[in-house]
This record gives sequence, structure tokens and C-alpha cells, in this order.
Amino acid sequence: MVKLDEVNQTDYATDVLHALKEQNKDKFRNLFLDLHPQNQVDIFVQLNRQLRDQLYNMIGGEEFASVFEGLELEKQKQVISELSDKYVAHIFNTIPTDEVADFLAELETVHANKILNSMNKDRSMIVRELLSYPIETAGGIMAKEFVTIKTTDKVSDVIDNLRFTAPDAETIYYLYVLDPKGKLSGVLSLRDLIIAPAFETVGNIMGTDIVTVTTDMDQEDVAKLMKRYDFLAVPVVTKEGLLTGIVTVDDVIDVMDEEVSEDFDEFIAAKGGMDVNISSIEAAKKRAPWIVMLIFFGFITGGVIGQFEESLEQVVVLAAFIPLIMDSAGNAGTQSLAVVVRAIATDSLEKKGLLHAVRREFGTGLTLGLITGIVLLIVVPIVYGSFSLALIVASSLFITLSISTITGAVVPVLINKSKLDPAIASGPFITTFNDIVGLIVYFTIATTFIHYL
Amino acid sequence: MVKLDEVNQTDYATDVLHALKEQNKDKFRNLFLDLHPQNQVDIFVQLNRQLRDQLYNMIGGEEFASVFEGLELEKQKQVISELSDKYVAHIFNTIPTDEVADFLAELETVHANKILNSMNKDRSMIVRELLSYPIETAGGIMAKEFVTIKTTDKVSDVIDNLRFTAPDAETIYYLYVLDPKGKLSGVLSLRDLIIAPAFETVGNIMGTDIVTVTTDMDQEDVAKLMKRYDFLAVPVVTKEGLLTGIVTVDDVIDVMDEEVSEDFDEFIAAKGGMDVNISSIEAAKKRAPWIVMLIFFGFITGGVIGQFEESLEQVVVLAAFIPLIMDSAGNAGTQSLAVVVRAIATDSLEKKGLLHAVRREFGTGLTLGLITGIVLLIVVPIVYGSFSLALIVASSLFITLSISTITGAVVPVLINKSKLDPAIASGPFITTFNDIVGLIVYFTIATTFIHYL
Repeated sequence: MVKLDEVNQTDYATDVLHALKEQNKDKFRNLFLDLHPQNQVDIFVQLNRQLRDQLYNMIGGEEFASVFEGLELEKQKQVISELSDKYVAHIFNTIPTDEVADFLAELETVHANKILNSMNKDRSMIVRELLSYPIETAGGIMAKEFVTIKTTDKVSDVIDNLRFTAPDAETIYYLYVLDPKGKLSGVLSLRDLIIAPAFETVGNIMGTDIVTVTTDMDQEDVAKLMKRYDFLAVPVVTKEGLLTGIVTVDDVIDVMDEEVSEDFDEFIAAKGGMDVNISSIEAAKKRAPWIVMLIFFGFITGGVIGQFEESLEQVVVLAAFIPLIMDSAGNAGTQSLAVVVRAIATDSLEKKGLLHAVRREFGTGLTLGLITGIVLLIVVPIVYGSFSLALIVASSLFITLSISTITGAVVPVLINKSKLDPAIASGPFITTFNDIVGLIVYFTIATTFIHYL
Repeated sequence: MVKLDEVNQTDYATDVLHALKEQNKDKFRNLFLDLHPQNQVDIFVQLNRQLRDQLYNMIGGEEFASVFEGLELEKQKQVISELSDKYVAHIFNTIPTDEVADFLAELETVHANKILNSMNKDRSMIVRELLSYPIETAGGIMAKEFVTIKTTDKVSDVIDNLRFTAPDAETIYYLYVLDPKGKLSGVLSLRDLIIAPAFETVGNIMGTDIVTVTTDMDQEDVAKLMKRYDFLAVPVVTKEGLLTGIVTVDDVIDVMDEEVSEDFDEFIAAKGGMDVNISSIEAAKKRAPWIVMLIFFGFITGGVIGQFEESLEQVVVLAAFIPLIMDSAGNAGTQSLAVVVRAIATDSLEKKGLLHAVRREFGTGLTLGLITGIVLLIVVPIVYGSFSLALIVASSLFITLSISTITGAVVPVLINKSKLDPAIASGPFITTFNDIVGLIVYFTIATTFIHYL
């Protein structure tokens, strides 16, 4: 956890809070508006209703906008309910349109429309456009505030003009070169612009090997692309090649976090129940379908044991190895699953292909089966005094581990290729499947050789 | 998977490959050197030894440097072995010193020293310094190529000077303001520099609310800090406050990927066996200790069943519910574990505290226990025709789920606070623990009420 800047934080926070409580407007404004927005947010979230009201009175909606941007959704909603319509309009006329869209997407239509109508016309039109894209696509995460230039512009003029265009832009570190029809014909990094001779024209120094994404590209693919090229921003174009927005690296970092949480989520089949900010009941509701389904799977697994009741009645000690078979099959399968799921998520298999990973996991399963087999052949005779029992358990585990690593590796590959519900590749599903396979293998072998026990 | 730019890629790749095979040096250089480095890499990795040699002959070490940077470690080692010492020296005198250090850290000392000695003195000194920091700290990932300015510098002069300093800098999007003693006294973003009037001095427009990190800060904390503030770069200072390096956002994105893989790794106790690029045998070697340990845990769990052999002999059908109890306990625990591990990793609990998450998980466990209890009270009598059996299984599962969600949530919190080996918080460990608890609860209840069956 980041505790690094706590010392500094308390330093400045004390002074700011003091000025706020004293209602010393000038001092408060001086101190507070000088802070990094994130530090402003850290102070704001500690305030009670009365102090929040005092703060709203001391700084305007335009100034509060950067604080609002940094708040979590629930807090944002609360803040909106505390403010006058006019103050709210000031906020939404200041923060970047993509952030407005993200927020409004979470509100009911009535409330969203009310805010949209209170905004400047040109901005509300942009927000409405952004809201029209699916949330998890390039269109849904892009910003509309980018800087465009022309091939015929002179370097020194571009730098001069940036003085006026920069303050409203999401990033000025890439300048986008448009042809007369609005098509993207080149990109110029601010770095290349600064390095270039003042009298040079844009057309001569811009990059033309442009990587673009389309509005409908999945946000995860956008993130991978930007990671791959180490981009700080990527241009988003329409199907006609017209530049319509940019995705910046900070949005992509948030996407990466989201996608990892989703992967974890699917992996353990929690189905959205991973958000720690929802209540117990809500979390239980989301997870219950899976747990209940697992109970039915449990009946199937139990049914397998039931099928071999006769063998169990003859040799009750066989039951003692049920956990060992289940745990080993489950864990080996889950490990293979995790390896392949991560490999797909990070594209680290792009070159060698997924088949390579499946073969690797199968090899690992065979090796693990051999190792554990040897361990069991030594330990079981010592604990249970029976070498026949050891042979039965060791050979069952060898077969089980080999099968379960393949299952764990193959299922996510198949799902990735076929676009089936990825939940099937979740840990619990794979585990249950492997449990059943493992127990069938074990009891079949045990029943076949039961007269040696 | 990113397949988006494949169409473009084949377009240009064909021409480039053609020029290379034809040994048309001018055409090849024209096409190849115009490409984005990542696209150069994509082409290079497809070449066989002969074509690689032709490529080395057509472009110099300085030009090949950007390709080398983008290669994976194993490929980099291979390339080095194919090149003359002089060509290698050119490469390492061109790529950023932090990348040199990252590469040399993976070589044997003899080879690393040979390369260091072939480099320019000033650069090799910097690399030696970078190599002296632990790999997973700010010092280990920082770059030494940053731009410094003085408070008295005029805006227009700074912009002019950037023409000369920018080409070698890792980023020019932040300029660092040093006092005469080399202490960091302010930061100026290129954006603020561009916006400022040409005659203004740096001291009047620089930011003084500077967030810094120290060389020994863990890379994961650096990543979190940069994410929190949406920084493109953060300055690294010594304990004396002297600016010694910067960490840029592209390094941090790599760190995030690494840390997520590590989390997954720990979560499934694969212990580094997740890397798909190692062989089956190596992967098995890394995972075997855990799987073998699990076998011994399996003996313990089996021992619990052994303890209740008498009950089992009386009512064999009890064995049919072993999988159900084990799977439910295991999964509920793993879900809670994942929720809390992710919450710790993303700092999403910073404000509410980890206790909140533990309470939440316990509440979820109780609710899940109630839901599954009701399901069992309906289903078990139908399948097994015994309401007493249903009561035993349902109450056991209710207690088990409540306990296992707590275990799953509390263990990572304790480990996070106490700096114990996080492997204890891995899925298999938690699962085994919960299996044992679940079976003890189940068989104790079953044995107590066995005369009702």
C-alpha cells in the first residue's frame, strides 16, 4: 500500500483544513488550488457535509471540477445531490467530455438528460455522441479533445498556436495531421515538433506509419496495442478513416486494472461479486448461482462415489484417498488453467501458438504425475502398510494429473477460439470436472484390483 | 488478441522482406528504417539466420538498436552471439542505459563486464550504477536520461535548448528544475512550458507540489503512485533529495503486468511455473514442491475421514457428500481470498479498511450458507429420501461456508500486515485448510446424529 506520501500529506492537509474551518477564503483558496488534484481529492473525501458546503462556497464549479473528476462514482452522485443546478452545470462544462459521458452513463436517463440540457450545446452534443458507443470499446473510452494541424503548417506557428489550444486538450504530446477532408494523414509527436527546425513544415517531419484503432474495437485490444507500441495516446478513427477521438495511456491503465479484475472474477467464477464496495447480500446474490450450481455438481461427484458404494463398503480406507485425488486433480487443473488464461490475456503466446502451451501443460502433468507417483509409492506403504494400495493410488493420480492439466489448458483455448461463455473456463467448473474424472479413474482402478487389498 | 493491424502489417512486411532478400540495400533501408520500431521487431523475428546476417550488413548498430530493444531476452542473447564485438558496442552505446542494465543483469558477470568495457566510459558508469540497485525497486527500473533546467531559465530559451537535449532524453514531457546544489526544487510539464509566455522565467511557472519516489521504493508502490496521480513520469531522488533518475509510464505498465502475473502465481501456488516459455520439466520442477506438499495435506484430510471410519462403515452414503462439502468450502474460501487479494493489490480498500472486507465476506458466507442450506433441504430428501440426512448436510455446509469465507478473507490480510510468506495465502493452502475444517464439521455432526439416519 502506498503510505509513502502520508507525511507530506498531513503537512499540507492540516493547513488547508484549518483555513477551511476558519472560513478564511483567501488562505484556503491559495493553499487548496495549488495542490495536485489527487491531493485535493484526498482532503475532500475527509470532509463532513458542513465543511463540504463551506468548500463549495469558497471555490467555483470550474475550480471544483478537478476534484469531482477524481472522486469515486458513489461520492460523485452524493456531491451532485448537494449542489445547485448552476454549480453542477459549471462542473460539467469544465471536465473533459469523456469523463462527463462516463458519469452520465451511470445515471438514470431522466437525470442524465437534465444535466445534458444544462450544458453548453457544443459540449452536450459531444457527450451524446460518446454515450452512443458501447462502454467497453475504443469509442466508449476515447476523449474528444485532441489537437489537429495541417501538413502545410510551419513548426514555429504550430508551437505558437499550442499556447491557445493546449489548455483544453486531453494531450498535446501527439498532434494529429488532417488532410482537407478530415482524414488522418500523419502524426507528429510534440517531441519531434520541438526538435524540428522552426521554419520546417509539418508535412516533412510528421510520421506516416500511423497505428489507429476504430471506435468499435474492444478496450482490452486497445490496451494491448498501446502496451505493445508504448504509446501515450492512440487515434480513434471512424470506418471512413475520419479522426474522431483519442485514447490516452491513463485510461488504458484503468482498463488494464478492470480487465485483470474481470479475469480473476471469471477464474474464480465470482461473477462480479469481487467488488468490495457492494454489500454482503449483493455479493452473495451474484455468487449464489454458481455455488448452487456447484452443489448440483457435488451431487454428480457424490453420485460417482455412490456408484462404487460396494467397493467402499468392502474397503472403507479407500475413502481416505478421496481428498487427495480431488485436491490434486483440482489444483493441477487450475494451475494449467491460470497459465493459459494469463498467456491469452498477455498475448505471450502470439508467436508460439496456444498448442505449444497445451503440449507444455500435458508434459508438466506427466512429470508431476511421475513425481507424485514415486512419493506415494514410498509414503502409502508406511502410513497404511499396503503396497497394493500404494500402486492403486499412485497410478490413479498419475492418470488423473495428466488428464486434468490437459483439461485446464485446452478449455480456455477452445473458449477463446469459439467465443463460448468464458465462465466455463472458470476454476470451479474445471475443478469439478477434474474431480469427477479423478474419482472415476481412482474407483475404477480400485474396484478392478480390490481383491489385492 | 490483437489482430487488428495484421492487414497493414502484411502490406509493408512483404515489400521489406522482398528488398531484404534481393539485397537491395537502399530500398530496404528506406522502407525498414521508416517503420515503427515495434513493426521492425515483428519483421526481424521472422527472419532466418541468413536473412538476419544480410540485415546486419545493411543497417548499422545504432540503427539496429531500436530493434534490439524490442526483442525478448532469449532472442537478444541469440542476436548478440551472432554479431561482432564492435557492432554490439554500437548497439549498447545507443539504447537507453536502463535497457542496457536490464539486459546485462540477465547475463553472467564475465559477459556483462565484457560488454560494459566495450561501451563509452560515461555510459558504462551509469549502467554500473543502475545495476547496483535491486531489480524490483525504483532504482532498478528508472532511466537516467532526463532533462534538467534552472529556475532562472527563460521559457523561450528552454524550448530552444530542448532541440539539442530532447533526442537523448527518455521523456521531455516533464522538465526537472534543480537548485544549484542539484536538489529537485520544481517540475515543469512540457505542456505548461508551451502554454507559458515566451519571456516568463521557469521559477514563476513551475510546480512545487512535487511527488517523488526514492531509489529503494518497491516497483509495485511506484506503479500505484503513478496510477493514482495519472503521471507520465515520476522523479526518483536519493535520500539526500538529489534527483538521480525518472520512472516513465511505459515501464510502469510492464511492472503492472509482472505484478499481476505474480499475484496469479501466488494465488494458484505455481511458484514461477506460470511462464509459458519454460519447458515442461522446468515448470514441473517449480510446481512439484507444492503438489507434493498437497499430497501430504491430502493425507491429513484423509486422516480426518479415517477418524470417522466407523460412522462411514455404518452409513456409507455419508461418503457421497464428501465432494460437496470439500468443493463448496474450497470455492467459497478461494473466492473470498481472490476478493481480498485483489483489493490489497489495487488499494481499493485504502479508505474503508480491510476489516470492512472481512466483515463483508463473512456476511456473504452466512448468506450463501442460508441459500445453499435451503437448496439442500429440498434436494437431498428427493435424491436420497432422507430428511435427517438433508438436515445434517445443510447445517454442516452452513457452518463450513461461514468459516471458509472468513479464512479466505482473513489470511491475506494477516499476511499483508505481518510480512509472512504470501504463499500461505495461496489457493491450494486455503482450500486444503477449509477442506479439513469442512470435513471435521460434517463428520462430527453426522456422527452425533447418526442414529437418526
